[in-house]
Amino acid sequence: MNAQELLKLLELVQCGKLTPAKAIERLKHLPFEDLDFAKVDHHRTLRQGFAEVIFGKGKTPEQIAKIVRAMLAKKDSKHNILITRTDAKTFSAVKRAARKESRLAKFHPLSGVIAIERDTKIVGKGTILVVSAGTSDIPVAEEAVVTAEMMGNEVQHFYDVGVAGIHRLLANREALTKARVVIVCAGMEGALPSVVGGLVGVPVIAVPTSIGYGASFKGMAALLGMLNSCASNVSVVNIDNGFGAGCVARENDRG
Amino acid sequence: MNAQELLKLLELVQCGKLTPAKAIERLKHLPFEDLDFAKVDHHRTLRQGFAEVIFGKGKTPEQIAKIVRAMLAKKDSKHNILITRTDAKTFSAVKRAARKESRLAKFHPLSGVIAIERDTKIVGKGTILVVSAGTSDIPVAEEAVVTAEMMGNEVQHFYDVGVAGIHRLLANREALTKARVVIVCAGMEGALPSVVGGLVGVPVIAVPTSIGYGASFKGMAALLGMLNSCASNVSVVNIDNGFGAGCVARENDRG
Amino acid sequence: MNAQELLKLLELVQCGKLTPAKAIERLKHLPFEDLDFAKVDHHRTLRQGFAEVIFGKGKTPEQIAKIVRAMLAKKDSKHNILITRTDAKTFSAVKRAARKESRLAKFHPLSGVIAIERDTKIVGKGTILVVSAGTSDIPVAEEAVVTAEMMGNEVQHFYDVGVAGIHRLLANREALTKARVVIVCAGMEGALPSVVGGLVGVPVIAVPTSIGYGASFKGMAALLGMLNSCASNVSVVNIDNGFGAGCVARENDRG
Amino acid sequence: MNAQELLKLLELVQCGKLTPAKAIERLKHLPFEDLDFAKVDHHRTLRQGFAEVIFGKGKTPEQIAKIVRAMLAKKDSKHNILITRTDAKTFSAVKRAARKESRLAKFHPLSGVIAIERDTKIVGKGTILVVSAGTSDIPVAEEAVVTAEMMGNEVQHFYDVGVAGIHRLLANREALTKARVVIVCAGMEGALPSVVGGLVGVPVIAVPTSIGYGASFKGMAALLGMLNSCASNVSVVNIDNGFGAGCVARENDRG
Amino acid sequence: MNAQELLKLLELVQCGKLTPAKAIERLKHLPFEDLDFAKVDHHRTLRQGFAEVIFGKGKTPEQIAKIVRAMLAKKDSKHNILITRTDAKTFSAVKRAARKESRLAKFHPLSGVIAIERDTKIVGKGTILVVSAGTSDIPVAEEAVVTAEMMGNEVQHFYDVGVAGIHRLLANREALTKARVVIVCAGMEGALPSVVGGLVGVPVIAVPTSIGYGASFKGMAALLGMLNSCASNVSVVNIDNGFGAGCVARENDRG
Amino acid sequence: MNAQELLKLLELVQCGKLTPAKAIERLKHLPFEDLDFAKVDHHRTLRQGFAEVIFGKGKTPEQIAKIVRAMLAKKDSKHNILITRTDAKTFSAVKRAARKESRLAKFHPLSGVIAIERDTKIVGKGTILVVSAGTSDIPVAEEAVVTAEMMGNEVQHFYDVGVAGIHRLLANREALTKARVVIVCAGMEGALPSVVGGLVGVPVIAVPTSIGYGASFKGMAALLGMLNSCASNVSVVNIDNGFGAGCVARENDRG
Amino acid sequence: MNAQELLKLLELVQCGKLTPAKAIERLKHLPFEDLDFAKVDHHRTLRQGFAEVIFGKGKTPEQIAKIVRAMLAKKDSKHNILITRTDAKTFSAVKRAARKESRLAKFHPLSGVIAIERDTKIVGKGTILVVSAGTSDIPVAEEAVVTAEMMGNEVQHFYDVGVAGIHRLLANREALTKARVVIVCAGMEGALPSVVGGLVGVPVIAVPTSIGYGASFKGMAALLGMLNSCASNVSVVNIDNGFGAGCVARENDRG
Amino acid sequence: MNAQELLKLLELVQCGKLTPAKAIERLKHLPFEDLDFAKVDHHRTLRQGFAEVIFGKGKTPEQIAKIVRAMLAKKDSKHNILITRTDAKTFSAVKRAARKESRLAKFHPLSGVIAIERDTKIVGKGTILVVSAGTSDIPVAEEAVVTAEMMGNEVQHFYDVGVAGIHRLLANREALTKARVVIVCAGMEGALPSVVGGLVGVPVIAVPTSIGYGASFKGMAALLGMLNSCASNVSVVNIDNGFGAGCVARENDRG
Repeated sequence: MNAQELLKLLELVQCGKLTPAKAIERLKHLPFEDLDFAKVDHHRTLRQGFAEVIFGKGKTPEQIAKIVRAMLAKKDSKHNILITRTDAKTFSAVKRAARKESRLAKFHPLSGVIAIERDTKIVGKGTILVVSAGTSDIPVAEEAVVTAEMMGNEVQHFYDVGVAGIHRLLANREALTKARVVIVCAGMEGALPSVVGGLVGVPVIAVPTSIGYGASFKGMAALLGMLNSCASNVSVVNIDNGFGAGCVARENDRG
Repeated sequence: MNAQELLKLLELVQCGKLTPAKAIERLKHLPFEDLDFAKVDHHRTLRQGFAEVIFGKGKTPEQIAKIVRAMLAKKDSKHNILITRTDAKTFSAVKRAARKESRLAKFHPLSGVIAIERDTKIVGKGTILVVSAGTSDIPVAEEAVVTAEMMGNEVQHFYDVGVAGIHRLLANREALTKARVVIVCAGMEGALPSVVGGLVGVPVIAVPTSIGYGASFKGMAALLGMLNSCASNVSVVNIDNGFGAGCVARENDRG
Repeated sequence: MNAQELLKLLELVQCGKLTPAKAIERLKHLPFEDLDFAKVDHHRTLRQGFAEVIFGKGKTPEQIAKIVRAMLAKKDSKHNILITRTDAKTFSAVKRAARKESRLAKFHPLSGVIAIERDTKIVGKGTILVVSAGTSDIPVAEEAVVTAEMMGNEVQHFYDVGVAGIHRLLANREALTKARVVIVCAGMEGALPSVVGGLVGVPVIAVPTSIGYGASFKGMAALLGMLNSCASNVSVVNIDNGFGAGCVARENDRG
Repeated sequence: MNAQELLKLLELVQCGKLTPAKAIERLKHLPFEDLDFAKVDHHRTLRQGFAEVIFGKGKTPEQIAKIVRAMLAKKDSKHNILITRTDAKTFSAVKRAARKESRLAKFHPLSGVIAIERDTKIVGKGTILVVSAGTSDIPVAEEAVVTAEMMGNEVQHFYDVGVAGIHRLLANREALTKARVVIVCAGMEGALPSVVGGLVGVPVIAVPTSIGYGASFKGMAALLGMLNSCASNVSVVNIDNGFGAGCVARENDRG
Repeated sequence: MNAQELLKLLELVQCGKLTPAKAIERLKHLPFEDLDFAKVDHHRTLRQGFAEVIFGKGKTPEQIAKIVRAMLAKKDSKHNILITRTDAKTFSAVKRAARKESRLAKFHPLSGVIAIERDTKIVGKGTILVVSAGTSDIPVAEEAVVTAEMMGNEVQHFYDVGVAGIHRLLANREALTKARVVIVCAGMEGALPSVVGGLVGVPVIAVPTSIGYGASFKGMAALLGMLNSCASNVSVVNIDNGFGAGCVARENDRG
Repeated sequence: MNAQELLKLLELVQCGKLTPAKAIERLKHLPFEDLDFAKVDHHRTLRQGFAEVIFGKGKTPEQIAKIVRAMLAKKDSKHNILITRTDAKTFSAVKRAARKESRLAKFHPLSGVIAIERDTKIVGKGTILVVSAGTSDIPVAEEAVVTAEMMGNEVQHFYDVGVAGIHRLLANREALTKARVVIVCAGMEGALPSVVGGLVGVPVIAVPTSIGYGASFKGMAALLGMLNSCASNVSVVNIDNGFGAGCVARENDRG
Repeated sequence: MNAQELLKLLELVQCGKLTPAKAIERLKHLPFEDLDFAKVDHHRTLRQGFAEVIFGKGKTPEQIAKIVRAMLAKKDSKHNILITRTDAKTFSAVKRAARKESRLAKFHPLSGVIAIERDTKIVGKGTILVVSAGTSDIPVAEEAVVTAEMMGNEVQHFYDVGVAGIHRLLANREALTKARVVIVCAGMEGALPSVVGGLVGVPVIAVPTSIGYGASFKGMAALLGMLNSCASNVSVVNIDNGFGAGCVARENDRG
Repeated sequence: MNAQELLKLLELVQCGKLTPAKAIERLKHLPFEDLDFAKVDHHRTLRQGFAEVIFGKGKTPEQIAKIVRAMLAKKDSKHNILITRTDAKTFSAVKRAARKESRLAKFHPLSGVIAIERDTKIVGKGTILVVSAGTSDIPVAEEAVVTAEMMGNEVQHFYDVGVAGIHRLLANREALTKARVVIVCAGMEGALPSVVGGLVGVPVIAVPTSIGYGASFKGMAALLGMLNSCASNVSVVNIDNGFGAGCVARENDRG
């Protein structure tokens, strides 16, 4: 181990067997990044705070169950566990793996998210509002909602408030203006974030969804629309990236 | 001339020098499309009604002046004349060419449109409303306004009513709902037609503009947004095609 | 209810318990959009006139049947019901749900449209003509036809009249010139709307279809072709959007 | 004025000349959005806080000078004024327009930003760090820096710390981890935000720049890279949109 | 029938019941395109010469069998029949439909082409040479080969002579230079037509294939390469369009 | 010289100084391609027949004049000389360089082509017809016309016969059907080649032009349209490549 | 055989039956490329050195087994055999085909590579290091690893060292700097090659992978990122082309 | 300075004022990257070996001259200096700045490269061959040539050996097969690297150039072609990136 190597080196200095100058020479060639590794890891843990995350897509139910079991085995921490892009079959495997804590595991079928909420403390300072333009955007919105909740935020949501029926959005303006961060999920023309951005004075995180057909080009139209938003408080994440939006909102709400 | 050839042929039939059966044989080889040409031309004139149009781009001031002079020389008709995508220098040339009618010629510097309004009769049945999202979209909107006016329509316009300040649009909703056709010009994210489409019960003609930068890709983002509009009464013309929007609106308003 | 809240507030003013100035203060914080909601809704109903529409894609037969049952239960209105992008299995479920009105339900297998025609009144002023370039474009054309019919329009159609056999189109020119609006569905090079646009003096609504292979890029080639049409009375809707074309045509024909 | 109209209406109710029911009828037809307009405007002012913004591109020096003069004439507020995408000639015009306050006007030649700082109060809670990958990205970074400063934030910046010399970034990690928001401007492959996102536990706002050539496609490569960032705290604004990044960062830092 | 209508009209002229001038008036309103229709049809038959073509994709075996049966039933002509993009199941149906001529039907499994060769006369003047870059391009090449053969051409082919082993192509140069038209099918980088174009003095018809992966973008890379060919005798058809190449080559070889 | 080297080697074999086996060894290492070079060159000369071609773009007037002087100096051949993409200034330099033959040099200002016609023999077997959709496409069409003429073909042209006025094309159908090859130049939606392809039974060479704006994407829309042509006798060359079309047509017409 | 033909010809010269001049004439018409073929083939064998390669995709297990059997039957060479993009079923068939050598055959399920290692000699001069950004990139990385190994190279690999956790990469810098060539496989934003390129002084071969979703566009984002790398020692191969990277690295390492 | 801080810390350990364990604690918080910085820098110098590079584009002649003066002032090293993408005016400024060494400065006008060759030692092991497809690709090829030369390599070049005249390439095959690395620059269809890759057994570095027009899309067609090369020893750099190709080749040739 590097820390041990370093200790040895310092003990050689302490007992006079190595001059400080020569120690510096040796230190330059030490793989010091390993120390760095530890430090960053520590940062990671601090940062991710309430949740450990598994990207489920491309992993078998067994693989996911195994990772979950290892996470739950850690004694010293009671982090929430979030598994994205998964399915009912994986949920069964996860429940079995969770044993005593299996009743904490919850499956969100629209988004395919599994959440094991072991710590319900709220660490965010305000409310994160998740808005979806259509009912088809709800899976992405739900991924954002659960992500933000599992990371210790108060989350509220309004679904199906798209721009072609602008009154539905306006009817909820009070809630909009009270939110600390707004996540807006929209496919097709992706116009909703601009409208929301004009109504609120907080960060708006836009999530283009792959909803649509023809010239929507699997979310490309919505993505371009959001990047060109005429509202100056809008930033954008990848197509269908509800998880990313939840994370960015969390960072915003922690500050 | 073909009509004359045809006349001769028929006279041959009349005077018995040609049997009907043989006449049919000959008719099959006549360039009958020339008749067709005339007929369509006639249609064209009827259809274009009040305006003759010159696409100015790529033509010299002299060329345009020459065409205008020829148009004005036609005795039997007093059509309006519309010249798109031109400039002040061309306007001078056109004024000189217009002679007695020079005071009818008017130059719209933002859009580069020259209009010679010789017939002010209104043939449209309602009002065409032209809406622009930003002040930068006005040149395109103006091209639409002048086109529709020159073709005999009542035209009204609201500029700078983009979606990031939705209240500005809502403040004019009464006028919106009274229009018979609405043209909406917008660059950047191109979201305005969807919002307008949700507020009115008439055709909305969306014109993407090349306004924006970066990922607007010279109007591509706005174009895709409009094609994916979640409002079902929206159809789209080419980027910056204010003239086309004016023509389509005219057709709608004539019906 | 908001109207009631407002009534109370005004009664307080009336009976002197609230000064007008204070009432204004309160009014500013009323969720006035709810009034707006109602008004817009009313507009919606008026506007959609004869048809209520369900976008079938992504919904289960059961979900659709449930919505249909609710629609049919409304006593005060006899709207037509249109369900797009669905299948035979859903049609069975819808028929069961429709009970007494089940014989009104009709399934169009090419386009996957289900139509329940409860009101056969014609409200359009003329004929909407739907033209398709090839036989493969018929599903999209059929969606347009049924949409326009269900919304109270007289609809006629010509299929398989593509530009590589221009005589087939010309042979039907009489019908073309009599239509009040023409919808043109074409895949591959998407050239038909330009040709039609040059033959008629009414609005042409172009629908690119995803028919083709290779460099057709799922309708992109046809879409670009239509947007660049050299005919000035052509506007465009999304790829395969027969429903949208039907709606836009309806608006045009209502005027 | 609408508030006055409303007042009159309520006074009519108060004095018994109008029943509450009839008042409701009238209210429904009031252009209530005008009230809304005022309220939103009020919000805008509150929100934009320290700065009024002019998008300089496409405006003449005279037009900009005129707007600035009007802004400075408002007695009741001492907002900062920010003019983006402008040049030295405009700066001269603005200085003349600013008269007594001309010495407060400052021109940033790389980004073309003019700033008139009339209020130096800091309202942000922490430090916004602006990082650029190369020296060519500095104009965009500078736009972000000045925007954030003019809106009342403490701003720090590191330039030329791109990923091909990762040690330059690591050398400044202490500052990185202390920032409350990090703005990262990068062209070419746009990889820097991912690296920064992995090092910090705060929101990272990625700004793709149009720096590069060939397959950079004017910022498209950088934009796609940033949208696909494997770091979960990264969101993205439009290509070269330093102003937008400054605004989003401001919102984050205010919370 | 129109010819009959025309005959009647001419008879009216002949017998003096209609003046030639009035006949012209009436003729202008005749649907003369129907005559045209016949004429063009006649052209079509002449032109397509030896083959009638069915585009099999999207048609059921039964539909295709029915069309084939109708074609074979025509007494006066013994055209070849070509069915593209089909499968073994359709072939069985076609064989049953072909009855006495079933032994003439042949199925090409790689390309999915069915050919019923009823007339083996050669009408082309030279040899059409079909070249493929890789073995994976053979299905497209085969479609071209069978198409050209069925239309009365002498066809030769060289497969798997791609540019990364240029000696394989050079080894066959004698045959190359003897061909009257060369069809070159290539996927991936699509470089082969340029090399062939430089070696021969006859038209080269390039067919990009969708062979490849990653940045081949389903034939887009090959297509762009061929369009930018530095050889001046190369023209291009759609991706995977072996049939089109066969047709174009046929036209070239007929001249 | 290689032929000489080879001669020497064979003479060594003849006089017994080298065994055939050893000669083979040496031959394997001879740069035999040089022979090949000559042979191909010879082919080139034969093939290009009547014209030597200079691509003018990016070359100075002096460079072009120098090349022309060298070409004219060759005693044994009287080839035509074709210089594409050039200007009036270059034409002056070329005229000076041409001296005695200067009166043969002709400049085509629309296309920027300089032609020195020293041999007016016709070698093509039929007529090449060049058709343009709009007047703006004429420069590209002219490049095709002059190229084909200079290579010894009879060329005819029809300009401004686009699809939105299909009667203009039909009026010239007789000429169309008489051509041996048809070149069709069109920008915007690029629909003309399909219509022409359906009217004629000869090869149609489609040239997309960069004419248009907005979603024409500098010829991309026209290019895609032509590649997806529903007429089976259409092949395509690069955007604005009138020269290439002329060459391909020449090959077709020589056969 | 050509060499024999040539020998005969030379013997004719030797015995005086053919003059050297006439021999030259005949030589010009010899298919000399066949000699060339042999020579190139010889080069190929020398070059490919230790491995014969089969691209498995699109081939049946039986076809592959047959090719393998033929390869193993060659007595004079003991090349390694590499089969890419295949599966377990094919592996069974290959094992049966390999008979005595079946125990040498090994299947790599992640990448679908089958390797038959018959010659374990190391011919590369250093170590090829294969690095992957994420665990999902491992299949592509594995294809590169096995390819390089089967061609006689020492290969080392580090997986899951992406840029969002830069410390993981830095921790392995010693190994990085010792490698003679580095292959870097990364999807999503494709940033890793730039970072690696900045840390090492040897060629970096970047392999974009199709890993990601939304705006990753199946590896396009990673590909563009790598092409725009700010590190000057990075070159790129096709998306998912681990085999190509292994080959290029091999060439680099042989030198 | 950090090294000094470290020295102090070690001295404290040496003199017993700090235990090794506590020293480790402090070391963890040292900005150790600064050490790293130095080390990497050292690496950089070693690595870049013979040349220091300035990317000239976007820098004024004065700025470049100033950087050059500073480079020349360094006493301890005699590196070559390479300035890319510059012009004659800058060259004058550089010559003045170079003073005594001004005669070493050389300007390459086609590529805009300035080279100051102060060290002519060859460190590469073989010859780098630079090949260009057309004369228009020479500027990019020249940038590669000068870059490789200035970094201590033997460089040879063949220009204008494109695939449409394959014999020109074959005529130089001997030189091709002797090179240790081949750089191939090609625009238009970008086919040359595949052909070269099939002829040689060394790494081929492909450089797409922006030469071409229409569907070449400024090098995109060439880029895609090269990425899809069917030759397995080809890797690719950015469009027009001759400098990058020179660097990669240098790394290859150093090994």
